[in-house]
Amino acid sequence: MSATVSKTNPGNFFEDFTVGQVIEHATPRTVTEGDRALYGALYPTRFAVPSSAAFAASVGLDPHPVEDLIAFHIAFGKTVPDISLNAVANLGYAELRFHRPVLPGDTLSTRSEVIGLKQNSNGRSGVVYVRSTASNQRDEVALDWCRWVMVHKRDVDAAAPETVLPDLKKALAAEDLVVPDGLDFSSYDFTAAGEPHRFDDYAVGEKIDHVDGVTFSDAEHMMATRLWQNTAKVHFNTEARPDGNRLIYGGHVISMARALSFNGLANAQLIAAINGGSHVAPAFAGDTVYAWSEVLDKAELSGLSGAGDSIGALRLRLVATKGRDESMTLRNDDPSTSSGTGGYQDGVLLDLDYWALIPR
Amino acid sequence: MSATVSKTNPGNFFEDFTVGQVIEHATPRTVTEGDRALYGALYPTRFAVPSSAAFAASVGLDPHPVEDLIAFHIAFGKTVPDISLNAVANLGYAELRFHRPVLPGDTLSTRSEVIGLKQNSNGRSGVVYVRSTASNQRDEVALDWCRWVMVHKRDVDAAAPETVLPDLKKALAAEDLVVPDGLDFSSYDFTAAGEPHRFDDYAVGEKIDHVDGVTFSDAEHMMATRLWQNTAKVHFNTEARPDGNRLIYGGHVISMARALSFNGLANAQLIAAINGGSHVAPAFAGDTVYAWSEVLDKAELSGLSGAGDSIGALRLRLVATKGRDESMTLRNDDPSTSSGTGGYQDGVLLDLDYWALIPR
Amino acid sequence: MSATVSKTNPGNFFEDFTVGQVIEHATPRTVTEGDRALYGALYPTRFAVPSSAAFAASVGLDPHPVEDLIAFHIAFGKTVPDISLNAVANLGYAELRFHRPVLPGDTLSTRSEVIGLKQNSNGRSGVVYVRSTASNQRDEVALDWCRWVMVHKRDVDAAAPETVLPDLKKALAAEDLVVPDGLDFSSYDFTAAGEPHRFDDYAVGEKIDHVDGVTFSDAEHMMATRLWQNTAKVHFNTEARPDGNRLIYGGHVISMARALSFNGLANAQLIAAINGGSHVAPAFAGDTVYAWSEVLDKAELSGLSGAGDSIGALRLRLVATKGRDESMTLRNDDPSTSSGTGGYQDGVLLDLDYWALIPR
Repeated sequence: MSATVSKTNPGNFFEDFTVGQVIEHATPRTVTEGDRALYGALYPTRFAVPSSAAFAASVGLDPHPVEDLIAFHIAFGKTVPDISLNAVANLGYAELRFHRPVLPGDTLSTRSEVIGLKQNSNGRSGVVYVRSTASNQRDEVALDWCRWVMVHKRDVDAAAPETVLPDLKKALAAEDLVVPDGLDFSSYDFTAAGEPHRFDDYAVGEKIDHVDGVTFSDAEHMMATRLWQNTAKVHFNTEARPDGNRLIYGGHVISMARALSFNGLANAQLIAAINGGSHVAPAFAGDTVYAWSEVLDKAELSGLSGAGDSIGALRLRLVATKGRDESMTLRNDDPSTSSGTGGYQDGVLLDLDYWALIPR
Repeated sequence: MSATVSKTNPGNFFEDFTVGQVIEHATPRTVTEGDRALYGALYPTRFAVPSSAAFAASVGLDPHPVEDLIAFHIAFGKTVPDISLNAVANLGYAELRFHRPVLPGDTLSTRSEVIGLKQNSNGRSGVVYVRSTASNQRDEVALDWCRWVMVHKRDVDAAAPETVLPDLKKALAAEDLVVPDGLDFSSYDFTAAGEPHRFDDYAVGEKIDHVDGVTFSDAEHMMATRLWQNTAKVHFNTEARPDGNRLIYGGHVISMARALSFNGLANAQLIAAINGGSHVAPAFAGDTVYAWSEVLDKAELSGLSGAGDSIGALRLRLVATKGRDESMTLRNDDPSTSSGTGGYQDGVLLDLDYWALIPR
Repeated sequence: MSATVSKTNPGNFFEDFTVGQVIEHATPRTVTEGDRALYGALYPTRFAVPSSAAFAASVGLDPHPVEDLIAFHIAFGKTVPDISLNAVANLGYAELRFHRPVLPGDTLSTRSEVIGLKQNSNGRSGVVYVRSTASNQRDEVALDWCRWVMVHKRDVDAAAPETVLPDLKKALAAEDLVVPDGLDFSSYDFTAAGEPHRFDDYAVGEKIDHVDGVTFSDAEHMMATRLWQNTAKVHFNTEARPDGNRLIYGGHVISMARALSFNGLANAQLIAAINGGSHVAPAFAGDTVYAWSEVLDKAELSGLSGAGDSIGALRLRLVATKGRDESMTLRNDDPSTSSGTGGYQDGVLLDLDYWALIPR
């Protein structure tokens, strides 16, 4: 009998974490066809694999997987109450890999291992590094990733832990990528998919303006973020920020930009990995978001799967901007501006680095 | 051939009801996984049973039931065109019991029996009491409840019916509760469910501040209310009220508060019964709602099911407020205020009394 | 290697079309129970066939088909990138027929054949006529329709094609209608469906005021339009129009009006055909839409199916208005008004002409 104990979750503070600690996050979540439909209502996605069971089957994916980012958002959302409820800042993520497609009926659970700690010199907070792994009901890994957040200390007098910094890759190599079992692009229908461009049609350094824009609304980003059971209060509560705005979840911007990138990257069907991302500026309802991409690298994946030479990978920079930037400029070279030389160009919201699978 | 007869439904007026009358309400409705996904997009629910098919199966519920309140909202919505289209006021409800979980694929229909009538002394309206029963396609009762509404008379000169007042319980007793067939909390996974607190950790009189707040939006409450096929026009039409606001359906406030109560009541997995509720003040888009709970009673349910001693019930008061009230004050004791001594505290939107099932 | 070629789709211009040309539109789309739930959240539909699997089975439709307009919106959305991305105006549609119900799990693809061309006298644009056909994964036709749009020329100096004008019916005849295989209204449950009115209760010339109104919101119409993968940017982007408003997709108005028409036409369960429609005025968030109907024609369908004499068809005019018009006036007879004699009455948004199936 402990009725006097507070029943609500205060989240973890910096001194609650130890290197090697494993946290099993709450609330397993079953993915359904309802998630697919809502994703399609919230983002203008038209990629043929998640849109069509028949198309997915024609490239070896049967039953019909959902959009990769659905799995990511659900898996990520589970970590929020334990890892970042008391976060000062979400600093970054790396080495995200999709290990297998997620199917309707799959139940995802996430666990995190603390892989690094570094107290800040001010003694009031510290950086926590975790590797999180989302698995299905058969304990098969669906995706994993590393993430680091700055977290408040509960007690500024608590002793600093030994500093441990994990060795994280700036980008995964092509040979680190996992090609889904059975995926085979050798009878790929480019007409049905919407564009003729294949692996060989893209060149490293090429930039693509995805043209279309979407204006955000509060109801939509709240519904998306809630769907992933993400509980960070700034997304839902006008009383949580001095300006009275509801901050749009960074993952909402990722999904919107990825969906917009269909126009020019229609055949970049599956996300294999995310190397990292910067959420450069906050986004709010009323902002109109556009996207452009840059091809950072290319890799033939022969030998990585049983699909022979049908699959290639593009490493892409996906940039979301507030207002369209036809010049597709990432960095500001004008030293007289507020952001200064080398900072991100005004209007950049997101700079995401990922690997996509595309027919060769 | 009766083309001159009005085709639209004018609803029933007070003199259209007679004690003993049975009304079969229109539009059977099949529940789907799409309803579960939308519920999760509209409310921040994280209860493990409706969230996870695997978790539900681990406590004996397979196939995967949907959130109890989905069944309630659908069942209730069916009664609106016949019972409350001409209502002056929804006065109350009582004795709501869930008899079995509702599964995707189940089709719900509702019928109501008039169990009481009392004309008002002004002769212009009267109170109608109904017991409504929602059943699935196998004619198994899913839930039933009593409700009373004040309804206009069509003709003020119509004779008053004999007054019949039903004998309604202020609260259902623990032995009235139905434990779903197969439910067994003996191998309950508290880590997956999100909190360690079990039946014995809650004390009668204990209050829990659920901390989090959500700001309402018009698009969301309209989508929710429409999903339940509730046709009351004040929820959808800015021309239906002098102030031009769309009144939020009281059930939307219930679902929002129940979802917020996860933080502190994560293991109160299933609603077994609703004893009654007061919708104290209207809610509108832009309002930020918070919730707190009070433990009103506790009951061990040994002997009510085959699950031995694994299941207990908490009788809970769930209070939704506009703005957070950390003092968790229900009633106003200041006689100088507008609400007066004993009235509800300013800011209270909802005062709901229900029984929840929780692991012992 | 063609990295210098623009990767984004510029759409087709007038001179890109030739009579007889067949265009296979991109992105097959699988319909799911999630679409049904979202449709019910976005529109106040209560027709018993799409609402209830049990009711649908009782009239011979098992498995449970989705609302006809879901199929229409998905099929139509596929044509936008190829047919109307560079449209000056959507001029009209005709001869839309539903050939079979669409079921969850069906994958729809659309192809269009160019059936007419006429360059405008200004030489800068022309009218393109197409017949579009949406089929399921078994290549069975789900629906087909004709449509004509005015499209810009890319090069004003391009030679004009020979003018070909298709012969389109102002309205389909009753014998052109397709009754779904197995449909049988002989044991139709009018109580469950919500109204007693059958085929014989409607008279040609009769008008029905559907009473209820709904105020549009931006989040809802964007979610609807996105769900159908319709990419026309004016619906999503406040920067796409000088007034900063997001134009509501005409199909959203159709679905809203059709759902409102339940009140008075609850038994007009299935749309068999759409003869044509005029989108008279644009609609925006904040507008409150109402609907009224007029019975234009009636047809007993004996002999069109195996269902004997159980099924009739009503040809209906469905009018959506901004603000309620209890007078149900379609045309303006006052020469002093801006719209002038014979034009549509102020406030009319939509004038749709369709055939519905109803029990006899």
